[in-house]
Amino acid sequence: MTKVTAQLSVSLDGCYAGPHHDGAPGDWLGSAEAAGFFRVTRWVVNAGSWRERQGFAGGERDVNSDVVQEHFDAAGAYVMGRNMADGGEVPWGEEPPFRAPVFVVTHRPRPRLERKGGTSFTYVTDGVASAVAQAKAAAGGKDVAVAGGGTLMRQVLAAGLLDELELHIVPVVLGNGQRLLDERLGFGSKEGLELTPLRVLHTPDVTHVRYAVRGREPLVLDDRGRGE
Amino acid sequence: MTKVTAQLSVSLDGCYAGPHHDGAPGDWLGSAEAAGFFRVTRWVVNAGSWRERQGFAGGERDVNSDVVQEHFDAAGAYVMGRNMADGGEVPWGEEPPFRAPVFVVTHRPRPRLERKGGTSFTYVTDGVASAVAQAKAAAGGKDVAVAGGGTLMRQVLAAGLLDELELHIVPVVLGNGQRLLDERLGFGSKEGLELTPLRVLHTPDVTHVRYAVRGREPLVLDDRGRGE
Repeated sequence: MTKVTAQLSVSLDGCYAGPHHDGAPGDWLGSAEAAGFFRVTRWVVNAGSWRERQGFAGGERDVNSDVVQEHFDAAGAYVMGRNMADGGEVPWGEEPPFRAPVFVVTHRPRPRLERKGGTSFTYVTDGVASAVAQAKAAAGGKDVAVAGGGTLMRQVLAAGLLDELELHIVPVVLGNGQRLLDERLGFGSKEGLELTPLRVLHTPDVTHVRYAVRGREPLVLDDRGRGE
Repeated sequence: MTKVTAQLSVSLDGCYAGPHHDGAPGDWLGSAEAAGFFRVTRWVVNAGSWRERQGFAGGERDVNSDVVQEHFDAAGAYVMGRNMADGGEVPWGEEPPFRAPVFVVTHRPRPRLERKGGTSFTYVTDGVASAVAQAKAAAGGKDVAVAGGGTLMRQVLAAGLLDELELHIVPVVLGNGQRLLDERLGFGSKEGLELTPLRVLHTPDVTHVRYAVRGREPLVLDDRGRGE
């Protein structure tokens, strides 16, 4: 059965990058945003499976590499935000690393873009739910992976469209940066999104925690152990 | 060797309680702050070891109970913020659950308070580092536990005084609430606090992740796997 999944590398304080870079795109590598992003994704860059998919040599073949490979193998289609798709268009080149249909949520209509190696980009202008539905139909029974960025992931989560969330928690505190999970989810003050832990894999570089998303539930008080 | 440790129950988005309650103390139980706090500490209330220490019956005897017991057993002295000490003074009663010397960081001098069962409260007016040093001297070779609240924990962490941090990560997203780890740590924009994972214990109710605190280090870029 097709699941809608998302995964994100975050610091122990929940940041997937440093604070948003407001300057020119060419200055991004010198920004605090990049410094934080590089730190929390270093384990991915060190993973042999990730390097192989990008066409780079080397890397480790370990649990972390297996986790990356697992996500590559599970995805039959992707949903992506417009910023990420625009930013990747040049660096990903003629043969992007997705090897599956990608549905880009955008306000700007654009013809479908076919790339080599099984990747295509379809530009969806009628919202997140439509993009997820189209990706499900295209996934051939495999999973739909919400590739990012953080804003799109938050929208999918808030809309109740996400089935599984895996966080790769890196042992660093940034103190300042962009969070996936915050007040922009728009939850009520006495409700929480409840999850069920499915798996924890632990390495010195990163702890992988995978959850099934149950849904929003009221936060209720208990008797603090005093008895009925 | 005496270590300085802290532990905190947090939601998956890093909140140890809902948003700060600004109203009258008597209205706290009806607040979103309490609703979030009750949710993330429910596993503690369900732990047999915690109930036994509070004088309550029942509770589970499981991994979560063992984790609570371990923290009780390890602590030879406590450091505590003034708000937490003031708030607990009445409910903790004549025989507080600490059974060890507690050093309260405060601006208001006050005579040492002796309680039954081994607990005492010493009011330290010359700062966090002094309170930690006095607690170390009183711990009899056991650990110093930074009991809370969040503001004091953050101060101890930012001052480089913490040796170990254990987060009990509860599978709920609050979306809104009080965080331990945020910009109030005062880190520079291109530095992070690096930690070394020591242990992960995983249960359906909570994931316990324990870290050794290494210290602040610059966030440096890598070559993204392209090779030297």
